[in-house]
Amino acid sequence: MLQAEIFRERIDREIAALRLTREPQELYDPIEYVLSNGGKKARPVLALMACKLFSDDTEKALPAALAVEIFHNFTLVHDDIMDDAPLRRNKPTVHEKWGSNVGILSGDAMMVMAYQQLAQCAPEHLGEVLHVFNTAALHVCEGQQMDMNFQDREQVSIAEYVRMIELKTSTLLAASLKMGAILGGASDEQAELLWEFGRNIGIAFQLQDDILDLYGEEGKFGKKVGGDIVAGKKTFLMLKALELANGALESELAILVSDQSRNAEVQVAETRQIFNELNVKELALAEVRKYHDEGMSHLEALAVDTSKKKLLKHMAEQLLNREI
Amino acid sequence: MLQAEIFRERIDREIAALRLTREPQELYDPIEYVLSNGGKKARPVLALMACKLFSDDTEKALPAALAVEIFHNFTLVHDDIMDDAPLRRNKPTVHEKWGSNVGILSGDAMMVMAYQQLAQCAPEHLGEVLHVFNTAALHVCEGQQMDMNFQDREQVSIAEYVRMIELKTSTLLAASLKMGAILGGASDEQAELLWEFGRNIGIAFQLQDDILDLYGEEGKFGKKVGGDIVAGKKTFLMLKALELANGALESELAILVSDQSRNAEVQVAETRQIFNELNVKELALAEVRKYHDEGMSHLEALAVDTSKKKLLKHMAEQLLNREI
Repeated sequence: MLQAEIFRERIDREIAALRLTREPQELYDPIEYVLSNGGKKARPVLALMACKLFSDDTEKALPAALAVEIFHNFTLVHDDIMDDAPLRRNKPTVHEKWGSNVGILSGDAMMVMAYQQLAQCAPEHLGEVLHVFNTAALHVCEGQQMDMNFQDREQVSIAEYVRMIELKTSTLLAASLKMGAILGGASDEQAELLWEFGRNIGIAFQLQDDILDLYGEEGKFGKKVGGDIVAGKKTFLMLKALELANGALESELAILVSDQSRNAEVQVAETRQIFNELNVKELALAEVRKYHDEGMSHLEALAVDTSKKKLLKHMAEQLLNREI
Repeated sequence: MLQAEIFRERIDREIAALRLTREPQELYDPIEYVLSNGGKKARPVLALMACKLFSDDTEKALPAALAVEIFHNFTLVHDDIMDDAPLRRNKPTVHEKWGSNVGILSGDAMMVMAYQQLAQCAPEHLGEVLHVFNTAALHVCEGQQMDMNFQDREQVSIAEYVRMIELKTSTLLAASLKMGAILGGASDEQAELLWEFGRNIGIAFQLQDDILDLYGEEGKFGKKVGGDIVAGKKTFLMLKALELANGALESELAILVSDQSRNAEVQVAETRQIFNELNVKELALAEVRKYHDEGMSHLEALAVDTSKKKLLKHMAEQLLNREI
């Protein structure tokens, strides 16, 4: 079995072992539902991989790995309430199934459960790990708020957008890696390199997500192609197009963005047409490549055997080579 | 100045110092609004008092004191969303002012901020303090869920009700005291006595809150007298009355509980009449006394000078002697 697969199974086993029958059931049933809902477990696997760079005893990173996984799932529960999303991984969301109040409260309890895991880290690293985790956790909230703000704003710069996805998505990947490294015994400097690796790969990953939404294979990601356009989302593609469009294209795009009443397929097709004329997909791919390369340069700078880095390198490539 | 007042001012100063202008403003404005909203600061003051039993350097307990205060305020923000409460301390609630999404997210960020404070506890106590805090935090969520469950249930036993207020309210008081003690250098056994002191005083406090809602002075607590009855809440008074009522009184009470359409003042007056006939107020006061005495016995068992216990004893009396 591949090492990544072994790690994933280890995480799955631990998550399954969490599922005690606890009271009140109304609080814990949704938590069990969310945590058994599949998912790639990318964050905890990254934590274990980062630990393995510095120590063969990856069990040391398990509490932090579980903490990020539970925390990530908590953010999905609350984000889905805020976005009023009916489905997550093709299943009804918690608030859809049990109501908003249960969604809020189960999410809160999951956040506490994440910290319960974290509390089990080795005492000599606990303070530092807690600090890294808290930083990332607050960034996730800040990123989500920025994301909500952007929906109401007319103008959003690409720099602001990248900052938003950095806070909302990539800091937690960065933190997973850094905590794993710390628990494996890495120096501050080495742990920081892994943070930067994760931060850049995370941005690349999210930008690619934007591309896949429009150029990915239908149904492959459980979403309709062009969903971001129909939802009026300000993605990298859209912001780049708005930045580049002039004259007739600019007016056309403005109409497509503001008029959400038209047929969704037509809206997607016409927007894609404009994106193609402006070469937006290629510009986005170049951006993905830029952050990918920047991330990899930090991985390369790590003072560990090149052979040991293969796992993380492969994992990053896997995250990024999803069908474009 | 009284010691309690000195502690309160110390907490206020630290809370005020937290208020940096941070981005995004939409996330941090509500947090500042909530944290500057007054409040008795009972929990952090108890933490500092517990610390002072074992050490003159109460600054050591400050991170935990701030953590419980921020956490407590986070629970108010989320509870107010779940209860759809328009006012808190005579001011609009966060979700009323900024919407539910901001309420959810600011609350989440406050929970992280509480852990950021906690992370600043002395490293040798961090693991233990984190464990106590997590236990209480999860209890608060469980208590809130039970509270919501009770609203939909026909039958609630008094034992279940007391368990609910223990989880929702008193564990956080217990945790404040225990964390303060630990950070002051108390042994496990001594810290546990303070937990039990807080747990019992907390239950007494909440039971008295039920009594005050109906028998307190109008306007004194920012609420209308009998608000719990009008809201159809299953308080200790109501549960006791339902337990004791027979024959005609039982039918009368059943009508008063189920028929929420009648004039509020009449409903309160008639319910009070039945409560009086059943002697429910006195029974509730006896229960308050029971938990008070139980709490005090744990304070007395503490192996510190009696003179040192005066502060906590006085604080408990103050919390409990609010105008009956």
